[in-house]
Amino acid sequence: MFTVTVREHLMIAHSLQGEIFGPAQRLHGATYLVDATFQRAELDADNLVVDMALAATELRGIVAALSYRNLDEDPDLAGTNTTTEFLAKVIADRLAARILDGALGKNAQGLTGITVQLHESHIAWASYERTI
Amino acid sequence: MFTVTVREHLMIAHSLQGEIFGPAQRLHGATYLVDATFQRAELDADNLVVDMALAATELRGIVAALSYRNLDEDPDLAGTNTTTEFLAKVIADRLAARILDGALGKNAQGLTGITVQLHESHIAWASYERTI
Amino acid sequence: MFTVTVREHLMIAHSLQGEIFGPAQRLHGATYLVDATFQRAELDADNLVVDMALAATELRGIVAALSYRNLDEDPDLAGTNTTTEFLAKVIADRLAARILDGALGKNAQGLTGITVQLHESHIAWASYERTI
Amino acid sequence: MFTVTVREHLMIAHSLQGEIFGPAQRLHGATYLVDATFQRAELDADNLVVDMALAATELRGIVAALSYRNLDEDPDLAGTNTTTEFLAKVIADRLAARILDGALGKNAQGLTGITVQLHESHIAWASYERTI
Amino acid sequence: MFTVTVREHLMIAHSLQGEIFGPAQRLHGATYLVDATFQRAELDADNLVVDMALAATELRGIVAALSYRNLDEDPDLAGTNTTTEFLAKVIADRLAARILDGALGKNAQGLTGITVQLHESHIAWASYERTI
Amino acid sequence: MFTVTVREHLMIAHSLQGEIFGPAQRLHGATYLVDATFQRAELDADNLVVDMALAATELRGIVAALSYRNLDEDPDLAGTNTTTEFLAKVIADRLAARILDGALGKNAQGLTGITVQLHESHIAWASYERTI
Repeated sequence: MFTVTVREHLMIAHSLQGEIFGPAQRLHGATYLVDATFQRAELDADNLVVDMALAATELRGIVAALSYRNLDEDPDLAGTNTTTEFLAKVIADRLAARILDGALGKNAQGLTGITVQLHESHIAWASYERTI
Repeated sequence: MFTVTVREHLMIAHSLQGEIFGPAQRLHGATYLVDATFQRAELDADNLVVDMALAATELRGIVAALSYRNLDEDPDLAGTNTTTEFLAKVIADRLAARILDGALGKNAQGLTGITVQLHESHIAWASYERTI
Repeated sequence: MFTVTVREHLMIAHSLQGEIFGPAQRLHGATYLVDATFQRAELDADNLVVDMALAATELRGIVAALSYRNLDEDPDLAGTNTTTEFLAKVIADRLAARILDGALGKNAQGLTGITVQLHESHIAWASYERTI
Repeated sequence: MFTVTVREHLMIAHSLQGEIFGPAQRLHGATYLVDATFQRAELDADNLVVDMALAATELRGIVAALSYRNLDEDPDLAGTNTTTEFLAKVIADRLAARILDGALGKNAQGLTGITVQLHESHIAWASYERTI
Repeated sequence: MFTVTVREHLMIAHSLQGEIFGPAQRLHGATYLVDATFQRAELDADNLVVDMALAATELRGIVAALSYRNLDEDPDLAGTNTTTEFLAKVIADRLAARILDGALGKNAQGLTGITVQLHESHIAWASYERTI
Repeated sequence: MFTVTVREHLMIAHSLQGEIFGPAQRLHGATYLVDATFQRAELDADNLVVDMALAATELRGIVAALSYRNLDEDPDLAGTNTTTEFLAKVIADRLAARILDGALGKNAQGLTGITVQLHESHIAWASYERTI
């Protein structure tokens, strides 16, 4: 099994609903380091898991659509608790859709899985892993 | 598959018995960075893997019980080689017991696994993964 | 010259006013890693720059007063551009005031300077250094 | 499942053939951080996954044979695209051969897998995982 | 004193002339993490040390002119030992020239110094600091 | 001003005397990441601050003399509080002595200062800076 990972980051505001969130029920924000890992059983003819430049471009586009926003007002996310683990799934699912759309090239049809890990601080992070 | 990880640290003295350990047979010590990862197939109603504040509190308690001690004199560990990989298991098993006790809340009943990773330096680390 | 540094983190929402800030004019947020460095010419009788536990406690208190908030609505900060470099100064000045108040102990009277560094992502950080 | 990881680094020159590589088709180079992870179901009688000193020595030898070279002129690699993911496999396979040769000791016969991860920068890394 | 730092990276091939360099006399390469720090006594009217987006753009341009190349064949560098500390100076001097050209905006006229730090691995780095 | 830094690590046991140290009065231990920074106004004829291989070798020797020991029983340190900031000075002073002895080569006579930074965990570190 091979993997390739590219890192981006994301800065957003949001609030979380429910007593379990304590002070995070207030409007606050976070920088998330976003690590997108692409999995594949065998390398392609160029000895690649995925075209890293294309992968980085697509991840940057998905991150840019979320960045510098209040997620409480994002039409796709309003009314949802945008926890770190949930946001990892949002980004992984959007990346998977781009792969299926062909945006990462023919090469990317051989990918078998994606993991997205979000660091919210130096002491806490979350991830979501899915097949393609 | 979703995961959430929280980080703590631990400072202990110990010695390791057996020629294979070379200079580490002498009494010395270590700072371990302790990363506890909680796994779960689906998020709960709050969009959480686990209550991160409770998880951090329980990890802190387990780490505090080991911290600032000579493990060679710890009643539970004396006579055992407290290697990094073994200590990862000690902490994972204690966390699993707390989850089963309900200390991480009802929410935590949906957890399926724990991984504990201990960094002993910038060039060496170890981990133990188990089911719950 | 000796220094000691302790790290905390801070999660806030804010917006920045002025065209120069581009998309950061919108309400968004950040996690800041906060590194507070204490400087001193000679160690005290305990071979310390500062009581690290007290220093960490005071830093935690200053950070907690800012955390999980929208800084645009903070009475002390509203109407000000809370850039990373400006927030470094806010925290350094509040720490200096606590030192002068005696909150870090008699020991801390020998401190000669403070530097606060705030990481806003893995690719950008800022700092402010001042005397005491 | 237990793991132990040791880190080395590697500095090489190379070029990559194919339009997909853009400017990396030119002769350039990289520092790779090399993390070799050894997996095992149960600890041995010393409470070890592997003799960490031997593992580090063997990894250092494999890395030294590649270091400070132009991989385009390495007899074993010339004519091959030495992508990060491919080099992860080269190193993992050489480590596996050393384990089977007995170079990591009798202890290492219980190892079940190896993962090699190569960081090429703070924003990109790759890995290869195999059984033994 | 305030500072702001932005990070980029650079991948090059080169060789170093002189017995002191041992195996690094052979053609090899490196990834350098490039941290450019801008210093200033007082913040400007926007509460900034420097327009971070412009600073990042200029650093990216300077890094791109060096990236994915064999520095032994760069007309400006051929015949020179491009050690890590020397490259830190090359990048700092080019950034200073851009500041004096006005490329970082009027705002940047208040800058008093630049430090460039280059990490060549997880165990070695170098820096150069200069006034403007 | 130029600098070069090399990193080593150190694992020791010790205890600290005085109520101010709380639980660290008990015998415990630490891993210290040891960053030794060498300063110099101008590069030498090889474009170097210092022979990095020699610098690393000398640092390794100084660290090895302290490693895998109980510092409470070290003849040079017994009866002294071996705080992180104090150990930074011990290592810096030993490095300075080696430079003056000529162990880092003629090249090293141009060095003007040394800083030693010791990380004791991901949330605390200390340093000592001196002239040569």
